Amino acid sequence: MTKAEIQQQTGIPVPPNIKDFMFRGWLDEVRQHKNKLKYNHKVTDVELLVPIPNPPKIICLAFNYYDHARDAGLTPSDEPVIFMKPRTALNEPFKDVICPSFVTRLDYEAELAVIIGKETKKVTEEAALDYVFGYMIMHDVSARDIQFKDKQFTRGKGIDTFAPCGPWITTKDEVADPQNLQIITKVNDEMRQNSSSSNMVLPIRRIISALSRTMTLEPGDIISTGTPAGVAMSMKEPKYLKDGDVVEITIEKLGTIRNRIVFQ
Amino acid sequence: MTKAEIQQQTGIPVPPNIKDFMFRGWLDEVRQHKNKLKYNHKVTDVELLVPIPNPPKIICLAFNYYDHARDAGLTPSDEPVIFMKPRTALNEPFKDVICPSFVTRLDYEAELAVIIGKETKKVTEEAALDYVFGYMIMHDVSARDIQFKDKQFTRGKGIDTFAPCGPWITTKDEVADPQNLQIITKVNDEMRQNSSSSNMVLPIRRIISALSRTMTLEPGDIISTGTPAGVAMSMKEPKYLKDGDVVEITIEKLGTIRNRIVFQ
Repeated sequence: MTKAEIQQQTGIPVPPNIKDFMFRGWLDEVRQHKNKLKYNHKVTDVELLVPIPNPPKIICLAFNYYDHARDAGLTPSDEPVIFMKPRTALNEPFKDVICPSFVTRLDYEAELAVIIGKETKKVTEEAALDYVFGYMIMHDVSARDIQFKDKQFTRGKGIDTFAPCGPWITTKDEVADPQNLQIITKVNDEMRQNSSSSNMVLPIRRIISALSRTMTLEPGDIISTGTPAGVAMSMKEPKYLKDGDVVEITIEKLGTIRNRIVFQ
Repeated sequence: MTKAEIQQQTGIPVPPNIKDFMFRGWLDEVRQHKNKLKYNHKVTDVELLVPIPNPPKIICLAFNYYDHARDAGLTPSDEPVIFMKPRTALNEPFKDVICPSFVTRLDYEAELAVIIGKETKKVTEEAALDYVFGYMIMHDVSARDIQFKDKQFTRGKGIDTFAPCGPWITTKDEVADPQNLQIITKVNDEMRQNSSSSNMVLPIRRIISALSRTMTLEPGDIISTGTPAGVAMSMKEPKYLKDGDVVEITIEKLGTIRNRIVFQ
């Protein structure tokens, strides 16, 4: 069926593309026709892809959880410490993470990611959440050996497939309080991270406001807000990821992503 | 005139868009009609914009010049140490750099930037330059106070307008040896940097090969290869940039960019 045919048969306007749907008012438009929508596909019958395949930026925060910073022996900063991942690192919510064989210390990091919905610069903390489109899970897969050799984090965390995300974007109206969500990571069903977004050092509204003092935030920008305690590197005997391990991350209200680790 | 009319009148095929022109064979196509091309505009009569306004990635190298690393008291790495700038930092070759008033130590960094022309992964050093489209100047404007507070470089170097570049892209056929180009920075006509791309620690072919071991490089990716000696922070009495200063960067064969600093 063409878009015109769908529109004619259903009476529901069809947005020209996904970015217009998400960021240019079409979501509200379509929502008004909610009662006419027919859900023909179960979520288990479809392949879930990267929710935003070509984001303008992927910004990640370092050491933004009290429990994680304490484990790493660091005092958290009063401003967002950031690095970026390239878009080539993005990965689907249930697809393998392909780790190059020369990586020696592979670690997991469960993160709550924010999707920006409207362009903003110099926004106040009070108004910051008005510019959020929604939330998703981001797995900030990390090659610790490269990360700590370089000190700059991008190369060791920017490897192809090292940013599984999803399983979809939960719009912000579905998340009453993004600072009170449980975050769980299991490796082969063993609990590794079990914390809450209430442990963030800088809450989401402060991160957005602070970043917008220096850079324009654009619709589709992903801001991953850092990981809580429980990563392998903080253990006395670190349990780094091995070939065949399965990492499952669940964030309350946002769903679950699950990725197998493949060294090759 | 429409594209079809141009094509009909000149006999020269008109590429559908700039990315097809640059990366999908149209440049060679148009070159075959070189003798028919009429240059109607002098370069001084046009406004030069950002040569690649929406690059998939902007990767920058840290400490990749022997003279700069020595001044900073560092031993250079045998692998590329990288951070990324967001696309919102891109700036035109002759437009003002707008620095937030809270920045206390603003510095210049002249850099030779490489534009990737073809997608590649795991490319050898020998073949790496086959994937280069061309070269341009990048000014890696740096807020040292933020850079060294954060340790991660992206926030202090990723401020809006902090990546002036151009003045255009010089295609690689015009640059016989990219590792032998003079690089000059003047601040208000005072010489500050005067070095050569021959002082790079990792040459361009090695950077591309090494990065492609971990990440897919895509057409339009910008890789800025680090700055040589002479930046303000390395001086005994650092001459940081002030409101109204004009920074002029010239790289042999690539041209000159010139940006005034405006604090606001």
